[in-house]
Amino acid sequence: MTNPTAAVLGLGAMGSAITACLRDTGHATVVWNRTAAKTEPHAEAGSRAAATVAEAVTAADVVLVVLFDHASVREHLEPVAAELKGRTLVNLTTTTPNQARATAAWAAEHGLTYLDGAIMATPDMIGTPASRLLYSGDRSAYDTARALLETLGAADYQGEDAGLASLKDMALLTAMYQMFGGLFQAVAMMRTVGATAADTAGEVGGWLGAILPHLGRFGAELDRAAHNSGDHDPARGQDVDFARAAVGALITAAREQGVGADLLEPLMRHLDELAATGRGTADWISVADQLPIA
Amino acid sequence: MTNPTAAVLGLGAMGSAITACLRDTGHATVVWNRTAAKTEPHAEAGSRAAATVAEAVTAADVVLVVLFDHASVREHLEPVAAELKGRTLVNLTTTTPNQARATAAWAAEHGLTYLDGAIMATPDMIGTPASRLLYSGDRSAYDTARALLETLGAADYQGEDAGLASLKDMALLTAMYQMFGGLFQAVAMMRTVGATAADTAGEVGGWLGAILPHLGRFGAELDRAAHNSGDHDPARGQDVDFARAAVGALITAAREQGVGADLLEPLMRHLDELAATGRGTADWISVADQLPIA
Repeated sequence: MTNPTAAVLGLGAMGSAITACLRDTGHATVVWNRTAAKTEPHAEAGSRAAATVAEAVTAADVVLVVLFDHASVREHLEPVAAELKGRTLVNLTTTTPNQARATAAWAAEHGLTYLDGAIMATPDMIGTPASRLLYSGDRSAYDTARALLETLGAADYQGEDAGLASLKDMALLTAMYQMFGGLFQAVAMMRTVGATAADTAGEVGGWLGAILPHLGRFGAELDRAAHNSGDHDPARGQDVDFARAAVGALITAAREQGVGADLLEPLMRHLDELAATGRGTADWISVADQLPIA
Repeated sequence: MTNPTAAVLGLGAMGSAITACLRDTGHATVVWNRTAAKTEPHAEAGSRAAATVAEAVTAADVVLVVLFDHASVREHLEPVAAELKGRTLVNLTTTTPNQARATAAWAAEHGLTYLDGAIMATPDMIGTPASRLLYSGDRSAYDTARALLETLGAADYQGEDAGLASLKDMALLTAMYQMFGGLFQAVAMMRTVGATAADTAGEVGGWLGAILPHLGRFGAELDRAAHNSGDHDPARGQDVDFARAAVGALITAAREQGVGADLLEPLMRHLDELAATGRGTADWISVADQLPIA
């Protein structure tokens, strides 16, 4: 596909950034948004404004969907299944893995090729070296659209299961939000003695930055134990009893300072559960093995 | 104090590392441990083994306490208050800020100078450039012992409140444990599609490493809002409603994959509370302002 035309459905902050990036790299773009006024600046900048989803889709080789959520994706794509036939459909809307799989199943029913994407970037990062997008689903759709997609950021294909891009995205965001929770609690604790949030954030950033290079060791040990019937006992690192004492002290310290420790309590409950089931001398990272509920 | 003699009370992994480091840097060391056998390798390496706490204390200029917990500190120091007089007492045992303050008050009652310390290092890091120790309490005790303490790692004095070193230590460890919780959940989620923990840890490390440089911005915004009557509304970054949708999707995604989301649920409860009290358009980082319970 040489110089494909891209339709962008949805002109929120991310859809607008994607449209501008494609336009700036010489792609013909056609845009649609539920509120038509948002197409105007793009039309002035050289994009074609479509009045309907069907008009946008039929003008394009690659259809990029950047809508609010899964429900809006289904609402706007279902009426244009026939028009999507033979085009490359790439859904960049944030959805859960199962929602991505459901849309892939719907696409397959209608004979469409479907690629799901997850954007590991903020709108201002689109098109810069810091931008990375994960894709999963139809491999041929990925190969067809790849050159265009790479203008948005590094493209990383995860596999045929359409849920994989979303799953990795959400796993990483889960880690990020918990790190932020830790930052917030550290800020609240240090504020009780007058430290600014900026100072605490600097300290937290330095400390976590020193620890990040060691995460791989934790991962390798979890893999080793998984290949050894889940045997974390005896601990090769810090054991559950030590971690319980440490996390217990952290919870006490927060409360002593008048700060709630609820963000840390679920981890303590997992450690308590391990200790109560005879695994106090197991490696504390076996908490990871406690999380599956299925 | 030129070339002071150091007593080390407690020869667990950390006490042993500290003793070896001091000995290797030319300090006379006298060691005591509840189980006397642990003093033997140190005696063979050139330390003096003391049979009692009193014997160790009276042989030393600086007394370093590296015991199991606050109760063991009080148990072993209370009988030697008289012997500690005129010496520099440095408690490196992990305790909560209020426990450090209680020991400082006890020391003051007995006319002792008290310095509390928190070790931001693992035993194998002691004496290396990666080692950092925080101190708080009596400034003159810090100045007296500083040269000796700096052989253990970078020394960082936090202030006269004896609880400050422990508090900062615990704030940073709180952030660390929550980051680990995020790693564990990411590992559990990615295992459901066959990813190794090592691969996931690598991805999490890369992603968090990219985010760490931005923590300072969050801190600065929290400070700005705090100086502006806590005004996070309207959001200057991501708002509460957006974060609720995002974190809600992460919780759903974990459950869909058969992984518990309990580590993330307390953050969601804070976001729900903000939304329910009319702050859905406030900056989501105002969660940090929700944590004080006093």
